[in-house]
Amino acid sequence: MVTLASEMFAVAPALGKASLSAAQARLLTGKARWLHAACAAGFPTVPTIAITRRGWLALKTADATLRGHWVATLLRLVGRDQKAPELVVRTSARAHRAGLSPARLALTPPTSEAEAVDPRHPLSLAITEVFETLAGEPDDLVIVQAMAGSRMHSFLIRDPQTGAMGPAEDGARSLPDSARELCELMDGLAGTNLNCTVTVEGDIVRLVSARRAESSAAAELEAAVDRVARGSWTRRDAVRGIDPLRLQQLLHPRLKSPDSRTALTSGLGVSPGAASGVIVFTAEDAARMHARGRHCILVVTETGPTDIEGMKAATGILTARGGMTSHAGVVARITGKPCVAGVRSLSIDPANLTCRIGERTFKAGERITIDGTDGVIYAGALPLSQPHIGGAMKQLLSWSDASRAIAVRANAETLEAVNTALSFGCEGIGLARSEHMFFSRERMVALRRMILSENPEDREKALNGLVDFQSADYAAIFAAMRGKPVTVRLFDPPLHEFLPRTDEDIEETAQSLGLGVQALRRRLDRIAESNPMLGHRGVRLAITYPEILKMQIEALAAGVRAASAHQSEPVTLEIMVPFVSTVSEVVEIKRQTFAILDQARLPAPARERLSFGTMIELPRAALRAAEIAEHVEFFSFGTNDLTQTTYGLSRDDAPAFLAVYQRKGIYEFDPFVTLDQKGVGELISRAIEDGRRANPNLKIGICGEHAGDPASLHYFATLDVDYVSCSPYRVPVARLTLAQ
Amino acid sequence: MVTLASEMFAVAPALGKASLSAAQARLLTGKARWLHAACAAGFPTVPTIAITRRGWLALKTADATLRGHWVATLLRLVGRDQKAPELVVRTSARAHRAGLSPARLALTPPTSEAEAVDPRHPLSLAITEVFETLAGEPDDLVIVQAMAGSRMHSFLIRDPQTGAMGPAEDGARSLPDSARELCELMDGLAGTNLNCTVTVEGDIVRLVSARRAESSAAAELEAAVDRVARGSWTRRDAVRGIDPLRLQQLLHPRLKSPDSRTALTSGLGVSPGAASGVIVFTAEDAARMHARGRHCILVVTETGPTDIEGMKAATGILTARGGMTSHAGVVARITGKPCVAGVRSLSIDPANLTCRIGERTFKAGERITIDGTDGVIYAGALPLSQPHIGGAMKQLLSWSDASRAIAVRANAETLEAVNTALSFGCEGIGLARSEHMFFSRERMVALRRMILSENPEDREKALNGLVDFQSADYAAIFAAMRGKPVTVRLFDPPLHEFLPRTDEDIEETAQSLGLGVQALRRRLDRIAESNPMLGHRGVRLAITYPEILKMQIEALAAGVRAASAHQSEPVTLEIMVPFVSTVSEVVEIKRQTFAILDQARLPAPARERLSFGTMIELPRAALRAAEIAEHVEFFSFGTNDLTQTTYGLSRDDAPAFLAVYQRKGIYEFDPFVTLDQKGVGELISRAIEDGRRANPNLKIGICGEHAGDPASLHYFATLDVDYVSCSPYRVPVARLTLAQ
Repeated sequence: MVTLASEMFAVAPALGKASLSAAQARLLTGKARWLHAACAAGFPTVPTIAITRRGWLALKTADATLRGHWVATLLRLVGRDQKAPELVVRTSARAHRAGLSPARLALTPPTSEAEAVDPRHPLSLAITEVFETLAGEPDDLVIVQAMAGSRMHSFLIRDPQTGAMGPAEDGARSLPDSARELCELMDGLAGTNLNCTVTVEGDIVRLVSARRAESSAAAELEAAVDRVARGSWTRRDAVRGIDPLRLQQLLHPRLKSPDSRTALTSGLGVSPGAASGVIVFTAEDAARMHARGRHCILVVTETGPTDIEGMKAATGILTARGGMTSHAGVVARITGKPCVAGVRSLSIDPANLTCRIGERTFKAGERITIDGTDGVIYAGALPLSQPHIGGAMKQLLSWSDASRAIAVRANAETLEAVNTALSFGCEGIGLARSEHMFFSRERMVALRRMILSENPEDREKALNGLVDFQSADYAAIFAAMRGKPVTVRLFDPPLHEFLPRTDEDIEETAQSLGLGVQALRRRLDRIAESNPMLGHRGVRLAITYPEILKMQIEALAAGVRAASAHQSEPVTLEIMVPFVSTVSEVVEIKRQTFAILDQARLPAPARERLSFGTMIELPRAALRAAEIAEHVEFFSFGTNDLTQTTYGLSRDDAPAFLAVYQRKGIYEFDPFVTLDQKGVGELISRAIEDGRRANPNLKIGICGEHAGDPASLHYFATLDVDYVSCSPYRVPVARLTLAQ
Repeated sequence: MVTLASEMFAVAPALGKASLSAAQARLLTGKARWLHAACAAGFPTVPTIAITRRGWLALKTADATLRGHWVATLLRLVGRDQKAPELVVRTSARAHRAGLSPARLALTPPTSEAEAVDPRHPLSLAITEVFETLAGEPDDLVIVQAMAGSRMHSFLIRDPQTGAMGPAEDGARSLPDSARELCELMDGLAGTNLNCTVTVEGDIVRLVSARRAESSAAAELEAAVDRVARGSWTRRDAVRGIDPLRLQQLLHPRLKSPDSRTALTSGLGVSPGAASGVIVFTAEDAARMHARGRHCILVVTETGPTDIEGMKAATGILTARGGMTSHAGVVARITGKPCVAGVRSLSIDPANLTCRIGERTFKAGERITIDGTDGVIYAGALPLSQPHIGGAMKQLLSWSDASRAIAVRANAETLEAVNTALSFGCEGIGLARSEHMFFSRERMVALRRMILSENPEDREKALNGLVDFQSADYAAIFAAMRGKPVTVRLFDPPLHEFLPRTDEDIEETAQSLGLGVQALRRRLDRIAESNPMLGHRGVRLAITYPEILKMQIEALAAGVRAASAHQSEPVTLEIMVPFVSTVSEVVEIKRQTFAILDQARLPAPARERLSFGTMIELPRAALRAAEIAEHVEFFSFGTNDLTQTTYGLSRDDAPAFLAVYQRKGIYEFDPFVTLDQKGVGELISRAIEDGRRANPNLKIGICGEHAGDPASLHYFATLDVDYVSCSPYRVPVARLTLAQ
């Protein structure tokens, strides 16, 4: 009986203070929690009692003692005037949700113990009905309050857009000063934005109700830093108080408010941020729009290397085919363009310059908006908010750096991306994809010539054309990084991403190679692969075509020499071999690499700092980690490819069934977004253990999209890695997550 | 000094018998070994002594005792007549090889101890020179013999083609009966074919020399069985005495003798056996040739489903593209046609009806020969020998079954293949690939309709057309197997193998679907995959399209009912889920499968024997084996796909660099031929251990090409598997290997 009696209690009594047992304090949820806190802090509060579902059910059958306890609890709503007030019944739910009962107002108070427990009495009816709307949640409460005065106000304790201290409300009303006091008080107590309802009588503000309120990511950030300034939070509280994924939102343009009425369909968000503009169907039209200063969305079935200029000119990219690793996705992320790919319901009629998106048809020049974060496409131009990296973010990130043991690097290979990453506080480049340096029209020609050459002499000629590009790029990156480590991954082009596909494209390539179209088609046929993701790529190219390896190492060495000539910080170059499956590959590439480096006249400090390592991105490499570790200075786990091969799942092709898989609960999460700890993680953790046992000095990094995902980052932190490397825009996310 | 003295000794003294120490017996190699054995058995033998390299070198510097010992050894060549014979010096090498010195004949014997060790004496010069040709092999000997009579004969102790007891020699000479005695004696002693040289004087045959000789696989088999009949071998000796890979040669037509002069180039041997015929470039021409009873080789860039009739009509298939798992490879192996694929130097000019193979141009109608075992292509028609499965093979295999604990099943899904497998002694079907049942023109239409349908209704209609085909097929297979287990793998069509590709093919498919060509192309575009091997296949199809699963289970149940109606042995059906990566997939398919089976009115004995299991062919499935094992009755390791994903290596695309990899020693072996124990094997052995720990009754099988490879089979035997399943033609190989 004692426990049931304890489940009905005063939260904020009309007279005196509430004295709750520890068990009762644990029962406080929702409004009851905030009302009790305000009352306990001495702030005027509408008299309030609370009852649990268990307590309420027990009352119907229980003995006199319990009934007496309920009447005694109700009596705590009665003030000095001894008049029984009209009553209000409200939910007090752990989280606000749809379908909850609104407040039941102006209920006549029961006048006797019999009335207090009579199920037909208006108060009982109201409590029972309100509990019904709370169905299923065992720890939600119902509160009963003394009816408050008539002049009611609702406001947020902080501005939901800026985070400035409130009261913040739609109209511009003048509230007594104590409203601001309430805001400051509740902000300190709750550490989150609240929507408060109060009554105002003269200067007296009295709290009636409070519930959690949403704020923008920017506002949360400002509030967190402000709380530290006010002393209500420690720096550590601030670092832990921000959801890293919300930080992410601040780093790209985004929709002010998603509008489900204009949503057309959705695809795969492969490059984050939102973009609005007129529809164009060709790279040329995109360039034309760009020249006129107009925003446009390039809408195509898929993109290929000749579309690069058009993609750079477009504000956003929308493709019917492809996924994360498609050409469109890769280029969009590098150039920072929002991109939605793999939109199955998109079809384009190039002859009539129209396209179908979902159920609607659009003409060239009509406006659409795409959200590359969640993949949704909208008709019309929706309002966007531009990214803003204010002082608060800087402040928070600098606090987070103090409590972080794992370094954060960036995946970048253009000077622009490197500078972005540096501005976001990266501590090195963890993955410079050397083949990505060729994503421009002129260089693509040179690269294709190399891929399509059929003998070592032709290949060597084509390669000579590439060295100069590369060494200048490397020199610029090394200079920008001023001695911070730069991990360069040797050439890893899955062929299908680099070869011409459309008729037009093939014609142009043939011309640039001085080949007939037919002859080129035959060559393309010959090197076509049925599963390019598992094909002749990565270290396999370096083994079969040593001249490619030679070109790269020489270009790297030239870059190191050039950068060293102009700066005092020694260049820290880390050479990384991709797509390794056997130790013999590592040994062979290492031998060749150092044979070339020994001739390369590197400055002594750069030579000393230079290290050699390997990607671990295939299950076999993970299984043979001990053996491989003896020959390298670092491992970098390529979690994208490791996930693809461990699951036997092509990221580009997965969208065809991933949605069904998630809907049916076969996958709890998308393994390309959040690392699969049970399978892929098992391989990684074992490889780290085996690798470190064989080579205690082994440095461990993670590169791949997962390095920017908070859930995955928390897991990586348990694996004792030395650094993670993510896309530049995710660097702040990683810095914050790893500090938590 | 004692040990050096023991390294020069009489092998077959002129008088009396040789008495060798155990250490000396161990030194016997090559001719010395056979001469000693014959002499010890009492057969007349030319007097022979032997000396090791160490012994010979020591003589030059050693003291009087050793010299004396050498002279004493030489004296054992002197017969009753006390006349020092002319001498012969020969090699006695462990294995015959190129570059060995021929016999040095008619050497004057030394007449004194000084002469015996004089390095300029003809005998010393001969011994030194002969040792030089033996360079590098420490355990080869030199023998010195008394010069034998002039009438010399050489013969094999068994016929190298038939294995019949000899003497077998080119000319038809009449030799004394004791030559046959020598054959029988040496056969019993050596257990291998030997080439013997003898002198004949009257009826006296005297052994001069003997060395190992090659026999055909058929001859080896006959000889092994004959030795058991003669009592010189146990059955166990016979089973161990045959190389399983040689057995394999007996099961396909093969080249009588490969002719390097006519070899044009080589590709990937993807379906074993040799074939000769005229070149045709189209399926129609192949059918025409076949109708006229002429052998032809279908030469194409790649094959697709519409080529199936042509492939069946052709004697052999040659393609420029593709590999083991290409359409050509798969169909060729099923239909038992020799096939060479992935011939990079093959290009076809369809307009002029010519093709280039390697450096030569051929017209339609010219003859070529292909060897699908090693991938070599020859100009002209080379002589072939046809397969012959004699009584000896049957006998040997039945002995091998007695000492074998692991069952051998076959991968088969057509009645023809099932009957072949049964005739080779399979103990069940370990892998019936249900999608392969559609490799015929009519069925392919139905299958494509299903794959290309865009909503459940269309799909259901298309599926209805498939059920009848399947249930009749299943009924026939179950009936043929008479109660032996049949593992049916649920539908697993990598899309690219089943969709139309050529213009002509697309037109025809469009017509059969009642679609416009443009509309079909759009659909094809929509479902095209960039990496079909890692795409929407296997269990993923069954999850996303439950109607496909339903059709299959119903067809299986109908097949079981039909077969059960006509036979007393209960059907033993094992349903197997392909391409699983998570336990949730297994649970979902199991739930649906048994829901359908519960309505399927299976005969009780068949229902009791029915079991449910999963392929383990992805690294993640292997890593989660413990969890999966709780829900299934068996695992079957699909080593082909497991190798592809563990290495990140597409079998179809690997030929582009595999040759370089093997040449450079990066791979010691082709991991698609011999299982990689260190990586893939690690996953398998761990999964077996984890699976059995979670479910002690778990049955373990291996299916995949590796189950027909002796080296891999020896490894599987150490893993304690219950059965292996290989292609029908490999069943005898597996039976024999697992007995060894």
